[in-house]
Amino acid sequence: MGKSILITGGARSGKSTLAERTTLALGQPAVYIATAEAHDPEMAERIARHQARRGAEWRTVSAPLDLTGALDASDGGGPRLVDCLTLWLSNLLFAERDWEAEAEAFATALARQSAPVVIVTNEVGAGIVPENALARRFRDAAGLVNQRVAQAADEVLFCVSGYPMKVKP
Amino acid sequence: MGKSILITGGARSGKSTLAERTTLALGQPAVYIATAEAHDPEMAERIARHQARRGAEWRTVSAPLDLTGALDASDGGGPRLVDCLTLWLSNLLFAERDWEAEAEAFATALARQSAPVVIVTNEVGAGIVPENALARRFRDAAGLVNQRVAQAADEVLFCVSGYPMKVKP
Amino acid sequence: MGKSILITGGARSGKSTLAERTTLALGQPAVYIATAEAHDPEMAERIARHQARRGAEWRTVSAPLDLTGALDASDGGGPRLVDCLTLWLSNLLFAERDWEAEAEAFATALARQSAPVVIVTNEVGAGIVPENALARRFRDAAGLVNQRVAQAADEVLFCVSGYPMKVKP
Repeated sequence: MGKSILITGGARSGKSTLAERTTLALGQPAVYIATAEAHDPEMAERIARHQARRGAEWRTVSAPLDLTGALDASDGGGPRLVDCLTLWLSNLLFAERDWEAEAEAFATALARQSAPVVIVTNEVGAGIVPENALARRFRDAAGLVNQRVAQAADEVLFCVSGYPMKVKP
Repeated sequence: MGKSILITGGARSGKSTLAERTTLALGQPAVYIATAEAHDPEMAERIARHQARRGAEWRTVSAPLDLTGALDASDGGGPRLVDCLTLWLSNLLFAERDWEAEAEAFATALARQSAPVVIVTNEVGAGIVPENALARRFRDAAGLVNQRVAQAADEVLFCVSGYPMKVKP
Repeated sequence: MGKSILITGGARSGKSTLAERTTLALGQPAVYIATAEAHDPEMAERIARHQARRGAEWRTVSAPLDLTGALDASDGGGPRLVDCLTLWLSNLLFAERDWEAEAEAFATALARQSAPVVIVTNEVGAGIVPENALARRFRDAAGLVNQRVAQAADEVLFCVSGYPMKVKP
């Protein structure tokens, strides 16, 4: 079975760079499964900056909603990097999909992969309780998605200032 | 002396589930000391969901303000789970009690327990500085309460995506 | 070469107290390099409270902007404590300085120190995405500064409830 590694951490904690390095160390070429969609200029700029950092050893696949399908479709070759679960959740909520069923399907799919997969997610629950009810629901959902995927993953790393701390096993 | 374990982490990081498992592993039946009060429907729903998850091996005690009294009163039998310090602090502030004195009394009480106690708290200080002055004061107080109780506790765990990281000892 | 230790953590996680203890254990007397400026009464009160905690074993230097200069100027004797990078970044942004160049210069300067230096910084990226665009840019910059300095530092510690977790090496 292909090993699965979940990398979590705060914004700008170095998760994506660490995840890219970790993925390429598992094999090359690698597949970058992007969940980001450019809804506004700030996001478009962030996506472009991330892509510019990645070189020719990457093939990019876009999967804003059907992440499990993209994971299964890319299996059998080199390692995959999913970046990231938090934007995926945000897309699912915006599209009014059943995010709990989708997260369950994704976590279940990890066990049937033959090639490795590295997954990036975000810590969003360690600040003050948001005043906005929608933000509270989002951070609850994000935490539950992280827990479910962590349970299914072989390894979980918590990234602080660019360095990984071992959470699981 | 009864062992004391503080479990901290962000919202939906799996703290309560981990704390329940940890408590039951220390002995059964166990006492659940709840600090939550249902001030609104969102909170009422969260309390009901948490209670539904706990089974018959738990006896529930409500202690929105007099947590130290509830801790002392429940001593001598099975393990206790205090869930959580952050809501307790919130109740103390709302009732205009002296939260520093209350936290000191609670921390001091840990040393005189004969049965074990597991304590849940929240990380609320790792986001951007809140614009709201009351929120800034709350996160300062929450951090200080966590430090004081951590100092008194035998073990401190930091929960990430449902898994504990060792902070102390 | 003087050892460098970066201590990060959320608000009121006990970083400053830990950093002061760590610095004094490296030698005495020590130099406290303060980046804080009292822009308002809340900040003035916080600065005064921090100073009151430090004793006669400390000499205080103020460096709201020229942190690298203050670091170099204080080299050659006892250990230095820089408290903190996050306020320094905030001062640089307010003064419209090139914060990336300044962070690069500071990180580079660490390698040429002969006396040890302990550096405090803040985790600000583990809450919900701020609605305010300026706050989002600030948390991005703060995370990048932390990564750059962590890369240059010999040790990185993550402080939770007053206790250090090892991040690097």
